[in-house]
Amino acid sequence: MKCVIIANGDLEYSEDIAGIIRQARLIVCADGGARHLKALNILPHVIIGDFDSASPEDLLFFEEKKIKTISYPSRKNETDSELCISWALLNHATDITILGGTGTRLDHTLANIYLLKKLAGLNIPARVLNKHNIIHIVSGRIELKGRPGEVVSVLPITEKASGITLRGLEYPLVNATMEMGSSLGISNVFKETTASVSVRKGLLMVIQATD
Amino acid sequence: MKCVIIANGDLEYSEDIAGIIRQARLIVCADGGARHLKALNILPHVIIGDFDSASPEDLLFFEEKKIKTISYPSRKNETDSELCISWALLNHATDITILGGTGTRLDHTLANIYLLKKLAGLNIPARVLNKHNIIHIVSGRIELKGRPGEVVSVLPITEKASGITLRGLEYPLVNATMEMGSSLGISNVFKETTASVSVRKGLLMVIQATD
Repeated sequence: MKCVIIANGDLEYSEDIAGIIRQARLIVCADGGARHLKALNILPHVIIGDFDSASPEDLLFFEEKKIKTISYPSRKNETDSELCISWALLNHATDITILGGTGTRLDHTLANIYLLKKLAGLNIPARVLNKHNIIHIVSGRIELKGRPGEVVSVLPITEKASGITLRGLEYPLVNATMEMGSSLGISNVFKETTASVSVRKGLLMVIQATD
Repeated sequence: MKCVIIANGDLEYSEDIAGIIRQARLIVCADGGARHLKALNILPHVIIGDFDSASPEDLLFFEEKKIKTISYPSRKNETDSELCISWALLNHATDITILGGTGTRLDHTLANIYLLKKLAGLNIPARVLNKHNIIHIVSGRIELKGRPGEVVSVLPITEKASGITLRGLEYPLVNATMEMGSSLGISNVFKETTASVSVRKGLLMVIQATD
C-alpha cells in the first residue's frame, strides 16, 4: 500500500506533487506539514505529532473535516516524521515517500533521510523527494528510472560499502568498494532510462539530482 | 593556520561571511565558487577544479589579478571540494571552514559534509557553515558556542555510536548509545552559552541550526 508522509519542511506546490499525494492510499501528515495539505486542498488520513508547529487555524480546518489526530508530548525521543513512519508501518504501508522532509534546517533534513535506513532494513521501498532530489538508502539493490544525462550520485554511509555494482550509468562499477567520505560516486549520470545500483555489504545513499 | 574553502553551492553575502573569509590565512576557491568571491570582492590564494562550473568572465577576472589556478581533468575521482581540502592540508591548514558547500543539490551538500570525516580523523577542527547551520563531524569531543535556546542536533552517522556525553544542553546524556536512524538527538538546545559533545566509539554529526 503506497503511503506519503508530509513533513514540515519545504514543499513545492506543483501538479506532480499533488498527483503523488493523491495517488497514495495512505496520506500521513506530520504536525506542521498540515499547512502544505491545506494549501493543496488535500485531506490526510491522520495528523501526527506534538503539535508545536501546526497553526491553530490549520488544525481547526482539519478538525472540522473530522480528520483524525494523534498527539504526543513534546518531550519525546522521536521526531514527528519518525512517529508517522511507525504509524504507516502499523497500517500496512509497503512503499513510503516523504515529502516536505528537506529544507533550511539540515538537522531535520538529515534525520528524515536517515529514517530511510530502517525502511531499507525492512525491504520497504522508500525515498525522500523534493523538487531537485530523490534520495534513497540502499542495502541491497535498487532500480532507478531517469533521463539520459540525469545525475545519480552514490555515497557510502557506512564506514565501508563493498560489492558495489552500478549498471546503466556513464561510469559503471563492478564489485567495487567505497569508504565513507570518498567522492568517487558523486555526479554519475544515466546512460539510458533505467539504471541499477547494488551493494553486498554496507549502506549506500543514492541521490537522483537536478540543478 | 585558518583556512576557508569556497564551494559552488549557495552562499549568503553578509558582513559575517565576508569577515570569516577575510580572517582566514588561506582562502581556497573550488571552481564555480569563484562567483562568490568576485561578488564579495575578495581574492583567493588559489582556485582549484576541473573548471566546468566557473564562468569564463570570472576566471578572466582572477587571472588578471594573477591568482593561481590548479586545473584537473573532469573525469576524476574527487570532487572540487575534496581537491581543495587536499591542497589545504598540504599547505598546513589546521582549521577548515567550508562555505558555499550546501544548496539545492543534496548530493553535493552531503558529499561536502562527509568530507569532514577525514578531517575529524586528522584532528583538524572543521565545519560546513551556511546561514542556518553549522555542521560538524565529531570523533572525539567538541566544544560548542551558542545562545541559550539555540538548537543543537546530534546524529550518529556510524551504525552505532557509544559513550556519548552531552553537557550544557537541555537534554543531557551520559555515556549513552545511539544507532543510525534514531532521532533521539534531534532538536536539543543550549542551556547556556557553551556546550560539549563527546563520543567514545563511532562518529556523530553535530548540527547547530536556526530557522
